[in-house]
Amino acid sequence: MYKITQLENGLENVQGFFCGATNVGMRPNKSQGDVAFIHSQVPCDISAVFTSNTFQAAPIKHFQKYPKDFQTNFVLINAKNANAMTGQKGIEDIETIMSTLSKKQKVLNPVMSSTGVIGYRLPIDKITSSFATLDFNAKNSHETARAIMTTDSFKKELAYKVELEDGSSFNIAAICKGAGMINPAMATMLCFIVTDANIPKSDMDALLSASTEQSFNRISVDGDTSTNDTVMLLSNKTSGNYHKKAFAEALNKIMFELAMMILRDGEGANKLVAFEVKGAKSLEEAQKASMALSNSLLVKTALFGEDPNWGRIASTIGASGIECDDEMLSIHYDDLLIYSSEFRELDKIREDKAYTIMKQDTFKVTCNIGLGDASYTSYGCDLSYEYVKINAEYRT
Amino acid sequence: MYKITQLENGLENVQGFFCGATNVGMRPNKSQGDVAFIHSQVPCDISAVFTSNTFQAAPIKHFQKYPKDFQTNFVLINAKNANAMTGQKGIEDIETIMSTLSKKQKVLNPVMSSTGVIGYRLPIDKITSSFATLDFNAKNSHETARAIMTTDSFKKELAYKVELEDGSSFNIAAICKGAGMINPAMATMLCFIVTDANIPKSDMDALLSASTEQSFNRISVDGDTSTNDTVMLLSNKTSGNYHKKAFAEALNKIMFELAMMILRDGEGANKLVAFEVKGAKSLEEAQKASMALSNSLLVKTALFGEDPNWGRIASTIGASGIECDDEMLSIHYDDLLIYSSEFRELDKIREDKAYTIMKQDTFKVTCNIGLGDASYTSYGCDLSYEYVKINAEYRT
Repeated sequence: MYKITQLENGLENVQGFFCGATNVGMRPNKSQGDVAFIHSQVPCDISAVFTSNTFQAAPIKHFQKYPKDFQTNFVLINAKNANAMTGQKGIEDIETIMSTLSKKQKVLNPVMSSTGVIGYRLPIDKITSSFATLDFNAKNSHETARAIMTTDSFKKELAYKVELEDGSSFNIAAICKGAGMINPAMATMLCFIVTDANIPKSDMDALLSASTEQSFNRISVDGDTSTNDTVMLLSNKTSGNYHKKAFAEALNKIMFELAMMILRDGEGANKLVAFEVKGAKSLEEAQKASMALSNSLLVKTALFGEDPNWGRIASTIGASGIECDDEMLSIHYDDLLIYSSEFRELDKIREDKAYTIMKQDTFKVTCNIGLGDASYTSYGCDLSYEYVKINAEYRT
Repeated sequence: MYKITQLENGLENVQGFFCGATNVGMRPNKSQGDVAFIHSQVPCDISAVFTSNTFQAAPIKHFQKYPKDFQTNFVLINAKNANAMTGQKGIEDIETIMSTLSKKQKVLNPVMSSTGVIGYRLPIDKITSSFATLDFNAKNSHETARAIMTTDSFKKELAYKVELEDGSSFNIAAICKGAGMINPAMATMLCFIVTDANIPKSDMDALLSASTEQSFNRISVDGDTSTNDTVMLLSNKTSGNYHKKAFAEALNKIMFELAMMILRDGEGANKLVAFEVKGAKSLEEAQKASMALSNSLLVKTALFGEDPNWGRIASTIGASGIECDDEMLSIHYDDLLIYSSEFRELDKIREDKAYTIMKQDTFKVTCNIGLGDASYTSYGCDLSYEYVKINAEYRT
């Protein structure tokens, strides 16, 4: 047995990790950083999951130039500039920055991660000038989490302590960002997870991949996938302790909670809705229909309008191309049956109950296809005027 | 040689067709119809293309119960109620309505077409009570086109006269509706085309299918596909004249123009943008990337914001999963090169030119993938606050 407890604050809970941020002038609001770092006293194993976008940003290409299973002790992160579609120059810029960094600080295979506008070279001088004043022994998780924000309305950090039966323990903590462009295969979201657990590299790779599938790959704000999505897990083994099942649970928990935070902070979003598709013929079909629901503009605007219009849910399932039959289908909003072949028209009593359910910040839509036993749940949000405003004005 | 001339008004230009509409109380605005008909003096051949949504509405299932290559002389259309997800009862309701109709009017294999809210039974009594007063010899195309509107802001009708070299001629005319939910494989759009050309049934099927692929299947308002989409072509051969190439051109023209009208009338849309993807490895890849662009929320909101952010265009192509390489890619807005591997950052001069282009009501985005010779063009529109408003409030 083991016990997982949430801790206050974020990355500072994990032994041997330092973090901090500064404003180098890319972000007009000087009280918020635009360059941040995560640094470990000792070399770390690192596992990462990157965007499926063909145009991977320069920092991802730079990362992939290191040999397999390399170790690192330093992650440099910047906001306001994605360093994407910048070609070979974008990679060289990172090398220049890291070479300057290495004169100030003992770094091993440093990696970079960027978020912001596509198509502009990094302001190398601004970034490297910050190295003189950055305190590389800081433990300022709040400022680090704030520095990586883009259209996020709140910072996202989370930490857990895992206590094992023998009295030993280890810690896991993470910061992340990402509000718009959230879609399966992730999207402009960055997540940095650090742990002092004594976890083998092979477990890191397997568990990170499994947890990503259960969390970030199941959320959708707007169906787009960015060039920069990154989830990194760094372990410095400092605690000396490990328990695979406990670690997996803590990692799942931290990534799922962060994914829900991203969705709640979806650009202009007010509601978080789980779309469970069950009774499908295959997992692939369940996933296809579930993701179609969390991506549908008509479903999203109906959520925003709090309109219990199950027709849009049914139509979206029908349009997803999975095998389905209106005689077998049933739809629930939370525990309320809203459609089945015997109950097609919505009477006043059920419509009123449906309105009450839809007024909640969070609820669940369950669609039983009635043809098999595969199920899949994804998570979506509503689409509001605010989303359009944010995205029409993003660069201005 | 032949000559195609646009005529004033709509369906009344085609010999032997009658049309009209009335308000039976489904639409609160009494000055606009909610039930309409198209009727031919003599039996017509009919070809149709229906939605790819698995949950096809009752009128589509009713149509498909007729034997292959049946003839008809009557199409009944209603707005405000889709008669979708209504099961076997929905089909029986149509049979009841048609049986009543046949007592007032000599009908042969009458077909129905519906648009509106999903999940409610048709008000049979209201619809059939209109038969007593409807003038089945009317030629009122305007009222017919207005009666089939839902969230459309203007009626859509178009007619052409085709004059052949030998002095003979025939006519083709159409009405259509559809504003939101427009997506490849069509969407809640209905289109009724009538002709007096002496066209063989096999040509009707082939040409309707080809023209649909070049028109309605290339437009996207919001990426959703409805349960009711229908394009019908009726020919009563009354003119006795026909020329395949001329007919094909007139049909293409009428369907493409109507598709552009639908897009211009996209819910809350202000801009019509052509997305040409060329230089792709295959037609399938060109189509995939082009449709991804016309469907992307981030591209749509950037169009609304008139933001010349080519990063969103590039990112959407990269996310579409087609083979591409940022060293080979180039992007133009109209004739302005906005991205190539040599021209990555947008300088002030080109940015100002791009702003001017984006302020237009209509422009073209051309993406050259640079890896092959396949191309595909689709057509999209911007996404505005108004879209969200219309769809959040659709039922209220």
